[in-house]
Amino acid sequence: MKQAHGELKVATRGKGLYDVTREVRKWVRGQQIQSGLLTIFIQHTSASLTIQENADPDVRGDLGEFFKRLVPENTPWFRHTTEGSDDMPSHIRSTLTSTQVSVPVRSGDLGLGTWQAIYVFEHRIQPQVRHVLLHLIGE
Amino acid sequence: MKQAHGELKVATRGKGLYDVTREVRKWVRGQQIQSGLLTIFIQHTSASLTIQENADPDVRGDLGEFFKRLVPENTPWFRHTTEGSDDMPSHIRSTLTSTQVSVPVRSGDLGLGTWQAIYVFEHRIQPQVRHVLLHLIGE
Amino acid sequence: MKQAHGELKVATRGKGLYDVTREVRKWVRGQQIQSGLLTIFIQHTSASLTIQENADPDVRGDLGEFFKRLVPENTPWFRHTTEGSDDMPSHIRSTLTSTQVSVPVRSGDLGLGTWQAIYVFEHRIQPQVRHVLLHLIGE
Repeated sequence: MKQAHGELKVATRGKGLYDVTREVRKWVRGQQIQSGLLTIFIQHTSASLTIQENADPDVRGDLGEFFKRLVPENTPWFRHTTEGSDDMPSHIRSTLTSTQVSVPVRSGDLGLGTWQAIYVFEHRIQPQVRHVLLHLIGE
Repeated sequence: MKQAHGELKVATRGKGLYDVTREVRKWVRGQQIQSGLLTIFIQHTSASLTIQENADPDVRGDLGEFFKRLVPENTPWFRHTTEGSDDMPSHIRSTLTSTQVSVPVRSGDLGLGTWQAIYVFEHRIQPQVRHVLLHLIGE
Repeated sequence: MKQAHGELKVATRGKGLYDVTREVRKWVRGQQIQSGLLTIFIQHTSASLTIQENADPDVRGDLGEFFKRLVPENTPWFRHTTEGSDDMPSHIRSTLTSTQVSVPVRSGDLGLGTWQAIYVFEHRIQPQVRHVLLHLIGE
């Protein structure tokens, strides 16, 4: 049994879902671990992770729109407003989705379903560089 | 240290929570690993996982009803509608809950609390067969 | 490769976010595992976990307020009401956040981002003692 640590830097350009499956898969394939568990962890509280459909881009559009409506900017009772009108909604949207997700690795590849992709869900308006930790344990 | 991979196929019959604790526990007990970490991963984006109360069935009913109201079908601004009026709500409900959950294994059993059960949360109306990956690492 | 199990008991005093980062970090540092994966699991369905900002306390206040408004007590259509008006909202808030979170461990410390802290999110009104399982695997 062995393990490996990695890190992705994901440049985002505003709110939305950024597919990182290809980079994650590439890193996993480089680790000489055929079978095990991959953990993906995002080191931020205003961006998050989600596994969602990889086919119709309207899914990502509707998902983003849903979160904009569920947690609107400029909500009048927010107290945490000094970092911008998109900051507190970002924290809430982050807590409603995932900071971490783990995926079994089998036969040297991610155990994703046919229609699944791994996304960084950016909640802030301005471009950001998001740090994503990877950990793989197996053999 | 060793590991094992498994898979459950869960037949669902419409929206709702399906308790898979017994099947998961049975699989864990068959792996000869007394102590470690179990990971459960669902390979779909219109069904998800949640750990919830195993006692009063009204909890599951109210939970389902809450998600129906939070993410209504036939929401007029949804663009992703070709797969049916229940498809886009399913993706959103899936992102609001969990694609993966890990549970410590101690003394050969799941480290669940007294009132906890593991559920597949089906978000689609039509019957489906849901694939759930299991991964156990330990000794 | 080795592993360790631990447990925290967290005394809560009503709804809100309780920072457990210091206790979790202390436990990890005592395990003689410099590199690996930490898993945190809460054995309850009316309290949950979230990783959120550790700086401005208004973030926690706004987060709590958001969940109070999203899942109000005394919602008239709730059926599960025998355990109090705060019980069913607690189950829903728990499912909308996390029962488990895993964090890579590097150089003997949690791989958290600069602004991240680990919180027990208490959803019930009355004081509770919450049981949190810890599992660390690595070397």
